[in-house]
Amino acid sequence: MDTRVNPTAPLDLNGWMATQLDRVECALNQWVSVDASTDLEHHAPVDLMAAMRYAVLDGGKRLRPLLVLATFEAVSSGWVNDDFPVEKWRDEIARRGGADPDVGDQTSVETALRAACAVELIHAYSLVHDDMPCMDNDVLRRGKPTVHVQFGEASALLAGDALQALAFELLTPDGARFNPVRQALLCRLLARAAGCAGMAGGQAIDLASVGLQLTEDQLREMHRLKTGALLQASVMMGAACGEATPVARAALQSFGAAIGLAFQVVDDILDVTADSCTLGKTAGKDAQHDKPTYVSLMGLSGARAYAQTLHQEALRALADTGLADTRILQGLADMVVQRSN
Amino acid sequence: MDTRVNPTAPLDLNGWMATQLDRVECALNQWVSVDASTDLEHHAPVDLMAAMRYAVLDGGKRLRPLLVLATFEAVSSGWVNDDFPVEKWRDEIARRGGADPDVGDQTSVETALRAACAVELIHAYSLVHDDMPCMDNDVLRRGKPTVHVQFGEASALLAGDALQALAFELLTPDGARFNPVRQALLCRLLARAAGCAGMAGGQAIDLASVGLQLTEDQLREMHRLKTGALLQASVMMGAACGEATPVARAALQSFGAAIGLAFQVVDDILDVTADSCTLGKTAGKDAQHDKPTYVSLMGLSGARAYAQTLHQEALRALADTGLADTRILQGLADMVVQRSN
Repeated sequence: MDTRVNPTAPLDLNGWMATQLDRVECALNQWVSVDASTDLEHHAPVDLMAAMRYAVLDGGKRLRPLLVLATFEAVSSGWVNDDFPVEKWRDEIARRGGADPDVGDQTSVETALRAACAVELIHAYSLVHDDMPCMDNDVLRRGKPTVHVQFGEASALLAGDALQALAFELLTPDGARFNPVRQALLCRLLARAAGCAGMAGGQAIDLASVGLQLTEDQLREMHRLKTGALLQASVMMGAACGEATPVARAALQSFGAAIGLAFQVVDDILDVTADSCTLGKTAGKDAQHDKPTYVSLMGLSGARAYAQTLHQEALRALADTGLADTRILQGLADMVVQRSN
Repeated sequence: MDTRVNPTAPLDLNGWMATQLDRVECALNQWVSVDASTDLEHHAPVDLMAAMRYAVLDGGKRLRPLLVLATFEAVSSGWVNDDFPVEKWRDEIARRGGADPDVGDQTSVETALRAACAVELIHAYSLVHDDMPCMDNDVLRRGKPTVHVQFGEASALLAGDALQALAFELLTPDGARFNPVRQALLCRLLARAAGCAGMAGGQAIDLASVGLQLTEDQLREMHRLKTGALLQASVMMGAACGEATPVARAALQSFGAAIGLAFQVVDDILDVTADSCTLGKTAGKDAQHDKPTYVSLMGLSGARAYAQTLHQEALRALADTGLADTRILQGLADMVVQRSN
């Protein structure tokens, strides 16, 4: 019996988050480091690593890592508590040709932490490149000067590139205890979410849309790729670390889609209503750059109502997972909609 | 008995290369495409894909893909011809927890082609970013305007980012016929070679070295990362697609290191001796940018002698592999040293 999650105990979401944020911060500090990996034959150039660490450490809400870890816990407690015993998964994975010496044990926990950090590295690299002069030309991020302001444009470009590669390196550690079926699946989910049919594609649409009037469908498609794909991948990577039933997986996919879009709608609202100090980045820049947003399309109250609708969709999807305890995921969904930065 | 390679027949290197280049070109044309993958739920934005295709198609020597495919053939003929039967590998892979329904058959061949294209995508993205104004600020590449000249800086940045993600996507296709052990291994090799302890790290050292006098050791370390890591990874990824004995793998690692360095020494020589038209990129730019090179360190004749030494090292390493037929790899090593562009 797994004792980590007990559905009858009151949920301490803040306590859970503090613990997980600490784990993520420690792991990033260790893995984004010149002496990161004892099996790296050679150490990374010190200057490049300094820019990478600046981009990643000490900042950010870490929403994506939290989604990975919360989903992992939800599907893990699902197995252990009820109708989907560990043994059944061992058979299923064996049938698919993988070894799984690690279900529910320490290696799965490490794999989920690696997945959490890998997603955050992709997110961090996208911010570094997005802030560069040829893109949004922004000078403030997470309350600090942006990477190209601090280290120069060339270093920012390379640091972003190296962070993307490091994400895939984190997902594929060497060693017999790691399940290669899971490693390949995690790389697949992350690569698709990051690439031309995901985040990078969404940014390209965003670039091409400046000054245009988009329909709601076009705006949704842009954000589904630009922000939604990686948030949804965070959920699905968490599920992949524990394995989930097909029913749970389908419902989690819907959950990820709903909170991914809700996140962006709230982002658009905050760009209008919050100040730069609260946001930790330049406020009001969507209107300044004449970018189409949910607020420009629906008005402020329309956008707020839409965020509530998506929130309800997310909660319904969680109920459809059939998982024993999704209260942490529910708490994260609440946070996405109610956040102030 | 595999009939692809017959050590007693005369080697038609040009014929082999023409066939493989055609395969690589067709595959890149198919995989770097808006309707690339039937299992991509959504298509990439058309503008971004145009920049990605421009960066990748119709150009380049395709040395890295050729190294992947030649190594794959060498280790495959090694299995089939002599002391390392397919059955032994099935057992070995099963022991390590993977399924391998595909040794020596069509799926291995496709996996090697995917690996070949993935390495080329990483190489292509690095050129796109390297040519940008904040890096080398170059306007000519493969005889065409560079990507940022043609599509703008923001699109060049995003196209490079998306090409890197696509490389990992190519390595991790869905489907039971693909061996996940191999997928994870290929991702690991590529991520390490591309990242901060590989190509991106080497570029960072390169940036930091402008105007400095480097020792031979420092210059070698820079190039080992900047160019050598990905060339060596090409060899090792080819070996991973067929699986190779530990002895062969160790010798192939040395082979990859030697030709990786030889490639760069010849690059430095050509930057001085060739014209821009022959090179398809701006000649003389090392001296113009005051970059340390093997020519500036050893003089032209010293650099030429060093290239010959590395060539001999590479050929010795090939002999040490114990593989039945390494003539194609030998031909590629000759080409690396004798090339004129």
